[in-house]
Formats: sequence, C-alpha cells, structure tokens
Amino acid sequence: MRRREFLSAVPAAGLLWPVQLQALTDRLQRYPQAQGDEYWELVRSAFLVPDDRSYLNVGTLGVQPRVVVDAVLEHTRRVAMSYPPGVDWAALKQEIGALLNGDPAGFVFARNTTEAMSFVANGLELNPGDEVLSTNHEHVGGLCCWQLAAARRGISLRQLAIPPLPTDHAQIVDSFRRALTPRTRVLSVSHVNFTNGLIMPVRALVELARPRGIAVVVDGAHPPGMMPVDLRALDADFYASSPHKWLLAPQGSGLLYLRAEWRARIWPTVASGGWDDPSLGVDRLNHLGTIDESRLAGLLAAVRFHRAIGSERVHARIRELRALLRNALSAIPGVTLMTPASDDLSAGLLSFRTPRPPLELQETLARSGNIRTRVIGEYGYGWLRLSPHVYTRVSELDKVAVAVGAAL
Amino acid sequence: MRRREFLSAVPAAGLLWPVQLQALTDRLQRYPQAQGDEYWELVRSAFLVPDDRSYLNVGTLGVQPRVVVDAVLEHTRRVAMSYPPGVDWAALKQEIGALLNGDPAGFVFARNTTEAMSFVANGLELNPGDEVLSTNHEHVGGLCCWQLAAARRGISLRQLAIPPLPTDHAQIVDSFRRALTPRTRVLSVSHVNFTNGLIMPVRALVELARPRGIAVVVDGAHPPGMMPVDLRALDADFYASSPHKWLLAPQGSGLLYLRAEWRARIWPTVASGGWDDPSLGVDRLNHLGTIDESRLAGLLAAVRFHRAIGSERVHARIRELRALLRNALSAIPGVTLMTPASDDLSAGLLSFRTPRPPLELQETLARSGNIRTRVIGEYGYGWLRLSPHVYTRVSELDKVAVAVGAAL
Repeated sequence: MRRREFLSAVPAAGLLWPVQLQALTDRLQRYPQAQGDEYWELVRSAFLVPDDRSYLNVGTLGVQPRVVVDAVLEHTRRVAMSYPPGVDWAALKQEIGALLNGDPAGFVFARNTTEAMSFVANGLELNPGDEVLSTNHEHVGGLCCWQLAAARRGISLRQLAIPPLPTDHAQIVDSFRRALTPRTRVLSVSHVNFTNGLIMPVRALVELARPRGIAVVVDGAHPPGMMPVDLRALDADFYASSPHKWLLAPQGSGLLYLRAEWRARIWPTVASGGWDDPSLGVDRLNHLGTIDESRLAGLLAAVRFHRAIGSERVHARIRELRALLRNALSAIPGVTLMTPASDDLSAGLLSFRTPRPPLELQETLARSGNIRTRVIGEYGYGWLRLSPHVYTRVSELDKVAVAVGAAL
Repeated sequence: MRRREFLSAVPAAGLLWPVQLQALTDRLQRYPQAQGDEYWELVRSAFLVPDDRSYLNVGTLGVQPRVVVDAVLEHTRRVAMSYPPGVDWAALKQEIGALLNGDPAGFVFARNTTEAMSFVANGLELNPGDEVLSTNHEHVGGLCCWQLAAARRGISLRQLAIPPLPTDHAQIVDSFRRALTPRTRVLSVSHVNFTNGLIMPVRALVELARPRGIAVVVDGAHPPGMMPVDLRALDADFYASSPHKWLLAPQGSGLLYLRAEWRARIWPTVASGGWDDPSLGVDRLNHLGTIDESRLAGLLAAVRFHRAIGSERVHARIRELRALLRNALSAIPGVTLMTPASDDLSAGLLSFRTPRPPLELQETLARSGNIRTRVIGEYGYGWLRLSPHVYTRVSELDKVAVAVGAAL
C-alpha cells in the first residue's frame, strides 16, 4: 500500500513520524560509545544529502534529516485531507525550553531571526535620541531592524568595532563598557558572530547592562544545535534564533525568547485576536493568524532528532569536525584563519581568507569538489566561511583542504 | 524505484510537479463542455479529502489539491538534500498578477491576511487623532492591526454598522459617505465579509475616498479563487489576501497588493537587507530573511491548478454549489438565511441561523454527517457558515440539508 493511501485510510490514527524517529533512536542507541565512523555513517544515513555533496553551509541553512521532512510532509498531507493534526504547542514549548534551558512560557515562534529581531525593535518603546549600541559583526537580520527604528523613530544606532580575533572576552566587555552613554537603552549583539563564529560574552554584557537599565537583545541565529545554550544563565532580555540553521529544522523556522518581565509588556508587531490581553503573555506575539503549522511539526521533530543523538554528542562532534578542518586548513600556505582557536571563543563556524577573491575560491570549490560554502563579503571582510555538522564525513574535510590547497 | 530515491538520484533535473500538473490538465481537457458529474468527479480525484468527508469550511482554510501538496513536498525534499530549487519570483508575480489583474510589481508574499493587514497599518504614517473607519463585519485579522494603532499611536478607530442583508450597494456607500469626517484617513473594509459572504462595494468606496485623500485598505481574504478579482479595476490602495483559502494554496500563504504610489513609500514592518532602497519597490517588504519557500512553490502550483480548470468554470461552479445549498436550506423550517441572494451581493459563502445554538448545531453536523462548518460567533451573530468548493459533490449538499433538517 502506498504511503498516501495508507494515510488517507487512517485520518484519525496517530502520526507516523514519531514512530520513524523511535526506530532511528533505537538504531542509534545500539552504539553506546558513539565514537566510531560506523555510528556517524548511521547518522549520515538519516539525511538526504547526496553522497558526493559536501554541504558546509549549515550556517546559512541547515539540511533537514528525513524525519523532519516526513513530519512536514505528514502535516501537509493532513491539512490537504481537511484533517490538520494540530500542533502540540505545549510539547513544543516544553521541549524547546528543556533543550535551551528556557521557561516554556517565554517562546515565540517567528519565521526566522530577522523577524524575531524586528518583533523586538518594533515592540520596544524607544524615543528619539535613545541609543542602540551594536557591533560591526551583525548580520542584516539583526541590524536592519535598528536602522529602520533610527530612520523612522529617531533613535540613534552606533556600531562598535569588535576585533575578529580578540585575545579574550574581557577585551570585548571593556570596549562595550567604554562605549556606553547615558542615552544607551539597548545593547544588540550576536551570541555567535555570523562573520567568523566568534562567541560573544553575552552573560557579561547582561551584567554590564542590567544595573544601568539597558536591555540586551541577542541575535542567537547560530548557537541552538551548534553549542550549549542556557537561556536562564545568559539572562538576556531577548534572544532571537533560527532553528533552521544548526538545529536542522525546516526552512522558515524562527524563535524569540523573552525574559519574564517583557512578556506582557512588549507591543506585538502583528496583531490578531488577544493582542491586547496581557494574561496571554508571549502568546500575544504567537497569535499571527493562520500560520503554516508544518513548520512547528518539523521543529518538534528536529528537536527530537537532536536529542536522539544527544546534545553533548552533537556539540562535541561539531567541535571535532571544526578542529579537524582548522588543522587541515592551517597547514596550507596562503590561508589565514579568521576564527579564534580557543573553545571559549568559537564553536562550529570557521572563516578564513586567502589571496584569491573569495567568490572565485567559492566557485572553484563548488565546481571542483561539489563543496558548498558561504562568502562573508559584509563589511568588506572578504572571507570564506565553512560550517560542518553531524552529517559531515571526516573524508569531506580532507577533500576541502585538498581543494583549497589546489586552488591557491 | 521509490520517489525519494528517484529524487535523490536527479538533484539537478527539473521538478516533477509541473509534469504531474500537465497530466492532470490533459485529463481535464478531455471534457470540453465540463458540465457533467464525470468532470467534477475527475476534479475531486485531484484532492486528498476522504470520500466520506464533507469539508464545507474552505472559508477558514482550503484543502490543497495533490499537485500543491507535491510541490511543497518536492521543495521540502530538495532543501533537505541541500539543493533548494529556488523560487521563480518573476513567474509567481506574473501569474498571480494575471489571475487577479494586478501589476506583477505590486505583490508582497506575507504569511496570511492578518500579517498583510499589519504590514499596512504599521507601514502608514498615521498621527494621533487620525481616523480609521471600518465596519462591524471585520475579521480579527483585519481589525486588530487598527486597534493596536489606536492603543499605541493614538489613532481613532470607528466601526460602522453594516446591515447583513442590504438591498443594494448604494445603501452601504451612503452610510460610509455620511460617516466620513475631516479626520478620516483610512477606510478599512472587507471585499467579502467573512461573517456572511456579503460582497462590499470596494470600487465605489475607492471613488468616495480617493478625492478626499483617504486610503482604502481591503481585507480580501476570501475573493481570490472564489470569484473574479480585478485589482486594477478595484484600484484600492492596499489589498490583503489569504490564498490558502479559496485559491487552495498551502496553509500559511498570504498576499498583499499595493497601488503603485505606495510601493516605494510605505515603511516595512520587518527589516532586512534593502529595506531602505526605494528602487526595490515592494520587494523591500518581501525581504524577510530566510523564509519557507515551499509556500511559494505551493502557491504557484495552486494558481496553475486553478487555471487548469479555468477561473470562469471554478467561479461558476462555486456559485452553482452555493445556490443549490441555498435552495435546499431555505426549504427547511427554522432556517433563516443571513446571506443576500443576489449574485451582485454574494458569491461562495453562505450563513444562516436557526433556533438551536450554533455550536450545538455544528457539533451535530460533524457527528452525524462528518460535515465541517464554521460558527460565526463574532459580534454576537450566532450563525453557521458553509463554504463549498470545486471538490464538493452535489450529493454532499443534499446530505447537509437532510442533516440540518433532522437537527432542527
């Protein structure tokens, strides 16, 4: 019986993707040490990336494991049958909250970080002359919302220069401390800079800002799924993310986490029923009209897939792959690494520059090795960025190093 | 060979859903008169709605034909393979523009009408005391954005009482004319009221408003796919819609159409790269960060599916089904129809009231006949609303009438 017919026949029955996920989890758990190539080959087999493809651009958009695709498909078919299965919001908030150590009541499901950041910038009461302090490593998704507020509402936006290769976090915190003014109302920074993967000292910036009544807004597009994220410990006022990157959720999946004090206070950007009911808390921002709930079904599946491997194992594997890539590239004459080496200062992203124009090098890698990368042309940096994930084979990293060496 | 393996094997090849659509189109075109049950059974077979299900709530959310589901699935799988096929924005704008007689350069693809309306309300420069005039037949998706503007920005929102069963359009236009004040800056009305399907005189309201410098904002959630829409002839300043209703596009598909004069002027609500570049026109509002492009792939497939049957045939069939339903219900003692009979005043939606509480009647129909309806509880109306579409069988309408009769 074909799958579609099977689904048509049992509209009221349970969903299939959780059963598939359980089968995958069982297979993975037969490798208790989870060290060997065999284990990671099994993980790779849970993805649809073709064998000859080296997709090293999860930093732009993750590739979804088959179970996430299936969760989306199943939801989509149910809607087409007029039986949308509904989404278990409570489970989703609970499981995202557990993964990121956040209060389940604090999550808004936006379409991406860009939108989540606009929800914050639009939602805050800011007056002409109020200052937002940001950096020269922000993605447009975390910066344009403040540019808009500057143009429309007369706030002032300043971008602090952060060195790409700082010696430590204290150096960064000091430069923020010196840059604060009596008009500073918001610090808007990335948790991990998209440019080179530098981990920013969010917790220390919160400690600097809070006593001064300054809100800290974090573009956290990258960390969830890539490295440990502890929302309670970070204690930022707002944390925006894109689980369609490292958490491998469906394209168009975003998150916004709000500290408790903001949940009933911030103005919604999109208004639907309940927008003015403070008892709804952040759900005032989740009431967006009829949304594509298959995104949420896929996000829940992505969280569970991540857990099926285990956060610690995923994070360690990403660091291991990144370290191997770093070692291989650092041996190539002409390569200058633009990502700090220390585990405190970086995790999954790796950027480098070479004497060749980055677009040219990117094109060469794509053509010669079917290797997908990201050029960081923003702010005139001219770097190439690589981002491996659990589906990446060690042999692919060797291939990349050989291809870069040959290109230089 | 299973479909997934086939897809994995040919990442660079063309998409499959257009081939499927062509095959369906060929089958449909073997019925040149397109009158008989056989033709409409062939149309029904293009859907996934189970045989025993009477889904008469397309007014809330359409059901997608198989080819739309497949377009979404194919896109989703390609993204998971790291080969997103990209979306042909030019084709999408062109084909939507042709369907609705709008300039392709005027379209923004939001997630639904609610968001599109918030894009307008947020994007206009309105000052404290400026007045927005709306009605007592607006959906929360078209109203809350103005309530928010009232609470936050001090505008004034007034809701004009519109009779559900007017004798003609002139009566409505007159009441608007009398309600205008020197502070009126915006008329915000539905093209088709969600409450009972009344078609509002949008063109006449534009003629009333434009010479007075008043912008006309239309909640057009329902008309596209249900009845002819001619955006150039209507000439509203803004037209918001939800093609996931009658156009049968994927859940979470929205549209906003802007008259030429607004395209470079309106403030974006979500800011990403290019937000401040007037040469981008409405694409300043389409730059939303990484979005779920499978919605757009599905929307394009939905437009083509609609065209495969033909707009005139779709619209005529919906009117025919609605007329049959109207006749059947009007013969039942206790049923009071709340939708005007005239073709000028209504199209696909049909609302009625009975002595029984509507939620109770809805539940009875669901349980006894697997019939899906919508209660219009808003504004205390207490009506039941039915919305058939091309997949609806004539026999289902008889079933509904029998079930309603039995319940009363």
